[in-house]
Amino acid sequence: MYPRKLTRSIISNPDYPVVDTPKGKIRGLWEEDVFIFRGIQYARAERFHLPQEIPAWEGTKEAIIYGPVCPEMHTPIAHDQYNVPHYHYVQDEECHYLNIWTRHIEKGANKPVMVWIHGGGFATGSSIELYAYDGHELCDFGDVVVVSINHRLNCIGYLDLSGYGDEYRYTGNLGQADLVAALKWINENIEAFGGDPGNVTIMGQSGGGCKVSALLQTPSAVGLFHKAVIQSGLFEGFKDVTKEQAAELSKMVVDELGLTDIHEIETIPYYKLARAAQKAEQALQEKYGFGMYLCPVADNDFYLGTGMNNPFMEEAKNIPVLVGSVLGEFDQNYNQVYAEGSKNFWDDEKVWELLNKAFGNKAKEIVAAQQKAYPGFLPVDSLYINRGCRVASRDFCKKRFTEGCAPAYNWLFTLESPFNNGTVAWHNVEEAYMFHNANYLEASYIPGVSEELQDIMTGAWVSFAYNGDPNHVGMPLWHPVDASNGSCMLFDRKVQEGLHHDDELMEILPAKAIVGNNDREPLSTFGGGPRQSL
Amino acid sequence: MYPRKLTRSIISNPDYPVVDTPKGKIRGLWEEDVFIFRGIQYARAERFHLPQEIPAWEGTKEAIIYGPVCPEMHTPIAHDQYNVPHYHYVQDEECHYLNIWTRHIEKGANKPVMVWIHGGGFATGSSIELYAYDGHELCDFGDVVVVSINHRLNCIGYLDLSGYGDEYRYTGNLGQADLVAALKWINENIEAFGGDPGNVTIMGQSGGGCKVSALLQTPSAVGLFHKAVIQSGLFEGFKDVTKEQAAELSKMVVDELGLTDIHEIETIPYYKLARAAQKAEQALQEKYGFGMYLCPVADNDFYLGTGMNNPFMEEAKNIPVLVGSVLGEFDQNYNQVYAEGSKNFWDDEKVWELLNKAFGNKAKEIVAAQQKAYPGFLPVDSLYINRGCRVASRDFCKKRFTEGCAPAYNWLFTLESPFNNGTVAWHNVEEAYMFHNANYLEASYIPGVSEELQDIMTGAWVSFAYNGDPNHVGMPLWHPVDASNGSCMLFDRKVQEGLHHDDELMEILPAKAIVGNNDREPLSTFGGGPRQSL
Repeated sequence: MYPRKLTRSIISNPDYPVVDTPKGKIRGLWEEDVFIFRGIQYARAERFHLPQEIPAWEGTKEAIIYGPVCPEMHTPIAHDQYNVPHYHYVQDEECHYLNIWTRHIEKGANKPVMVWIHGGGFATGSSIELYAYDGHELCDFGDVVVVSINHRLNCIGYLDLSGYGDEYRYTGNLGQADLVAALKWINENIEAFGGDPGNVTIMGQSGGGCKVSALLQTPSAVGLFHKAVIQSGLFEGFKDVTKEQAAELSKMVVDELGLTDIHEIETIPYYKLARAAQKAEQALQEKYGFGMYLCPVADNDFYLGTGMNNPFMEEAKNIPVLVGSVLGEFDQNYNQVYAEGSKNFWDDEKVWELLNKAFGNKAKEIVAAQQKAYPGFLPVDSLYINRGCRVASRDFCKKRFTEGCAPAYNWLFTLESPFNNGTVAWHNVEEAYMFHNANYLEASYIPGVSEELQDIMTGAWVSFAYNGDPNHVGMPLWHPVDASNGSCMLFDRKVQEGLHHDDELMEILPAKAIVGNNDREPLSTFGGGPRQSL
Repeated sequence: MYPRKLTRSIISNPDYPVVDTPKGKIRGLWEEDVFIFRGIQYARAERFHLPQEIPAWEGTKEAIIYGPVCPEMHTPIAHDQYNVPHYHYVQDEECHYLNIWTRHIEKGANKPVMVWIHGGGFATGSSIELYAYDGHELCDFGDVVVVSINHRLNCIGYLDLSGYGDEYRYTGNLGQADLVAALKWINENIEAFGGDPGNVTIMGQSGGGCKVSALLQTPSAVGLFHKAVIQSGLFEGFKDVTKEQAAELSKMVVDELGLTDIHEIETIPYYKLARAAQKAEQALQEKYGFGMYLCPVADNDFYLGTGMNNPFMEEAKNIPVLVGSVLGEFDQNYNQVYAEGSKNFWDDEKVWELLNKAFGNKAKEIVAAQQKAYPGFLPVDSLYINRGCRVASRDFCKKRFTEGCAPAYNWLFTLESPFNNGTVAWHNVEEAYMFHNANYLEASYIPGVSEELQDIMTGAWVSFAYNGDPNHVGMPLWHPVDASNGSCMLFDRKVQEGLHHDDELMEILPAKAIVGNNDREPLSTFGGGPRQSL
């Protein structure tokens, strides 16, 4: 989605490249070995209703520009805009579009399909939100078909109106229903784009990982995917929103809007709905604690509740999973004290002042455990090490094993980036490495190191998509997690398998707030955020 | 602003690169030979008030991410999103930010400063709207300091409320006042970024060209710039909005909003203001004809009225200008019939059917004149040749000469792009060539050809910035326009100076509607545009 420095003309003509799908012809473009189809509509939906198949068409539809993305309730400049460049785009409730990168447009190529489900909680983001999501390099490197999906989010994707009539029965899971519709489209159409509908890997990071996790517990998705990747998408202590909370939230929204007929909610302007939903969600956060309340509801036959706290769905136990996280995640927000210098150059006094402030009388013990787990790292890095995603990912893999599921592989991305004289790996950074886009991520790129690591990581993701096993000849042996091996592949300058490498540290490291302590100005030099938020 | 494929780590640390400006320190980043400073605040302003200087600050401000852009009244997917990739970003009324690319951060380097003023009429766009605007390559190629500016637009930049009190005297020109404030900031600060405040070239395309043209008639801008480039920014028959029309428009807005006190207009939500302004502008278009009505008002001492219809401002007569346009401009929208094939492959019958439809009994004569003006082109291309910008640019240069101004150089970009088996040069396409970004423009790139042409064009723009003369050793001799030479540099596979080359054609070619005849579906396959426009 970013412009590449081209060495050959792109080809996009009325008759090439054109793919003949069951519903009609679609024209894309051919860019240096990769065919790209942007903005293919996979469904359409009225607000608060299930997605419907699109009718067949005459002639050729163009798929050379991205489709609109789901409206966000609020779009400020992200505090991590430098570390994780965000690509903004036009927002529209008609957002049922997907993008395809492939090296083949003939049937029979049968390449593995790697489907990217974006993050941003269940509230924000899109298939093209982050530059890292561009599928060209992954497609080219792995000879796989890459697909990325937009779907409904926030108050139009997860507002549970089921209490207002049977026609709204699934409203708490519409965003998920969109994803299922997209997977169904892939199942029925991807062969024409060189993909194998019998070998579909779904992948997601952060909120996208939550969505993948939820799809593993979604009966209507059974058979539509065959492997799953969860990246920083599991959180220690996570609980699904309860049916009661969801009803409480939607009642607040409906009351706030002062509707005389519930059906009015289907046509009122989006921003009014969003403003009411923001207010209601804030009220719930004050009442029940920080968290997401517009997210999949385990209240009916659509979604069985997170596999973290519930038995894994029987029909998905045969799905191998690749589950991991990043060393710093949100906790590296500590790093935002860089206005006062670079962490790696702080003197011992400052480091221990911060460590003592963060960990109290446990500081020495934590640093000792951290030094054991990560011998090459500095004591100061203890400040930035994430617990929530790490523990949840590790335990999820073990639970998969315990319940007799297909293999679960656990990993952790720990590479320090050069930004600011050294920055602990942050939430989202690994995406550039498994998408083979590390050369494009300005805050993280290290000559030689990034190329080698992305070859290994992208290679592992691709191997997993091909075989359900991430092992390949370019990396050390990687064991699936069992009851006792404590395996975790560590991605860094040196790639190595850890065995219980951080058990001791995780035993004593406290959880930090998901958005870490941050008592400095936001990353930007300005106020940030639209003056009138929606 | 797009991610480049990196071969070296970017450096951005607390102490490097840091520039010491008169008001305080600013930290940017260093990316392969070029220092980049994004989102530097040059002023701040309350709504409907003149921009104010920002106060000095302690410590170091970061300038590593872009500042917000001005809110747009409506942001649909552009119909030309493929040919002219648009980069969307967070919108905020606090949009007084500029970006700098430079190879030097020491005083005394004294490099020419090339300031980019974006297009989008006076209503939309931003300093980072188009990928072509990325200043890295231009800075690196020409060893110049590149600056690009955000400023207020549409109903917060050009709504003339002067009838509502002296405090609102300049409201019809606030967007222009922001530009003057930015030029003042450059004048006072650019030396610290290696620039020469005594050699500033302002450049703009489309609406940006209109703004440059207006700044040539703006007394408060005198001395703040020294050369001017207008690209597809002059339109045959253009008239400034009259004082009466501006008053009529603002009265409609105020009435529509039902304000009890005019000051309420300073705090009502932007989208309410925008909706009222949209309605009012539409009413004026119905009454007075298609055009922009939220644009600089020549009603007071701020702006003297367009130089097309008024005497050139005495104090700006010493400014050399580089003025040109593109062969197809808006008229290439005809090309959107490509769903029915490629123009270059249509048979004679179809071509002449369209020619006759467009030109009636003048068709043969027009094609004969077109073949004489552009010997390598096909008759079908007559359909796409623009008159409005071409004639206005030519005549503007001649008027500069006639009124005794500094040299005016005229040019026309005519390169056919490979998109769709051949597409006549469209509005905006030349930006990638004068910014040395042609390798990144997927719809236009031709191996070898694009590199050579962008070297010549960027070289000419850079030479003009250095010397006020675009001539350089890599291109044929280029004469400034005089009373009779009819000079026009033609940028194509072969670069050559035309002398009266299209006089005959322009004599008979009719003007077409600015947004050309377009009776097919929009370029996208979907509805386009937010369901609820602001």
